[in-house]
Amino acid sequence: MKAEVFLTSSTVTEDDVKGRTVIVIDVLRASSTIATALNNWARAIVPVADTGSATKIASNLDQSGYLLGGERGGIKIQGYHLGNSPLEYTQEAIEGRTIIFTTTNGTVAISRARGAEHLIVGSFLNAQRVVDFVRQIGLDVTIICAGWRNRVSLEDTLCAGLLLHRLWDGREPDLVSDSAHIAFSQYVHDQHNLDAALRRSNQAQWLMANGYADDVDYCLQTDVLPVLPYYKENRLVLYKEYEQASVL
Amino acid sequence: MKAEVFLTSSTVTEDDVKGRTVIVIDVLRASSTIATALNNWARAIVPVADTGSATKIASNLDQSGYLLGGERGGIKIQGYHLGNSPLEYTQEAIEGRTIIFTTTNGTVAISRARGAEHLIVGSFLNAQRVVDFVRQIGLDVTIICAGWRNRVSLEDTLCAGLLLHRLWDGREPDLVSDSAHIAFSQYVHDQHNLDAALRRSNQAQWLMANGYADDVDYCLQTDVLPVLPYYKENRLVLYKEYEQASVL
Repeated sequence: MKAEVFLTSSTVTEDDVKGRTVIVIDVLRASSTIATALNNWARAIVPVADTGSATKIASNLDQSGYLLGGERGGIKIQGYHLGNSPLEYTQEAIEGRTIIFTTTNGTVAISRARGAEHLIVGSFLNAQRVVDFVRQIGLDVTIICAGWRNRVSLEDTLCAGLLLHRLWDGREPDLVSDSAHIAFSQYVHDQHNLDAALRRSNQAQWLMANGYADDVDYCLQTDVLPVLPYYKENRLVLYKEYEQASVL
Repeated sequence: MKAEVFLTSSTVTEDDVKGRTVIVIDVLRASSTIATALNNWARAIVPVADTGSATKIASNLDQSGYLLGGERGGIKIQGYHLGNSPLEYTQEAIEGRTIIFTTTNGTVAISRARGAEHLIVGSFLNAQRVVDFVRQIGLDVTIICAGWRNRVSLEDTLCAGLLLHRLWDGREPDLVSDSAHIAFSQYVHDQHNLDAALRRSNQAQWLMANGYADDVDYCLQTDVLPVLPYYKENRLVLYKEYEQASVL
């Protein structure tokens, strides 16, 4: 199994994802929110790259069935039911509903990876579940970090590094891509002070300064949600093991 | 002095470079070639982003005064006098000549940084000269890694990390940008096996596989050229200490 990493999604092409298992990571906060929403029994998340598409999709749905969620510049979009804080996505708020979801970086990255053989969403919250799935499927893997406005984000890079560290059993193969080497090395460098390293990331600093410190505490937990958001027919749903035969 | 790093040049805007000392790095090979050419008494390097601009500039010059140099996809451009191998830029070949120079990544990065207060070109070859200049000038510094087709390159990231390590006297400040943290950590991670780390970079591997192993050996030397390529009036020239008063 080969592993490739994109530290931002800006250059991802169809060829980069075709025939591969692709993991999209946006730790703060889209990936963490998606995992949380599915864990709290949202019916599905429809990730869209822009608000225009969100409105269009919503106009075709029964109003009682969906919620609009997302942010621009970290702030809830005007008129939306929900922002991008995972803590808003409680069972009470979302159970049985479809979330039409658009964020600055995460859902853009997902939309760039739609042509993947398997497209899943990863975060610290569901890291081990992601690793188990990738191992089980056995295809080459591409990890796409959402980053921040086409720049590298430390928290996404570290999450990619953690996944590689587990997939490679702690030992980097001889020749990997520069991006994979950087993500792996970054994790090795910071692994014993991971929480502190993550908290100094620019996005964590912004969230803490803008009233979202609880989101940061929440999103930096590792392996607390055993859910796998799986992209199927334009939406993210919980991957169900019993569907495996037909998926493969 | 604050330090910012761009791991690729793709998102650099005018605001990112304005009022700052900007270092553009393309270790393999544009930065190294530029430093070498000036060390071997080229009159100037005119860096241009595309071949169309190169042809246009050449058409206004006396044919005996200039040489066309550069590459696309690593290969010398058809009809050009020189490619992008620093070893071609001997004193015999270039002394007194102006080089019109265009490469896939490096000269594009330089063109994006033209609005800087001071724009210089850095590589392992002239690393300490760059550090000394930045310290002497005392302005905030922006390091722009050229990368490779808008993706991160290990060798540029490590060179940026080396510069930061020296500028920060080996100790990372409390809060820096994610990109600066990544470049610094990468250098710390690889510093005791720097040559081996650099040789496993994708670009070094490509060059070694395509007959340019000598270029790799040459470009990975540290502090062997005490030259400072300085951008002034659309060209890179040797920075002259005695001009300092007027530059500052």
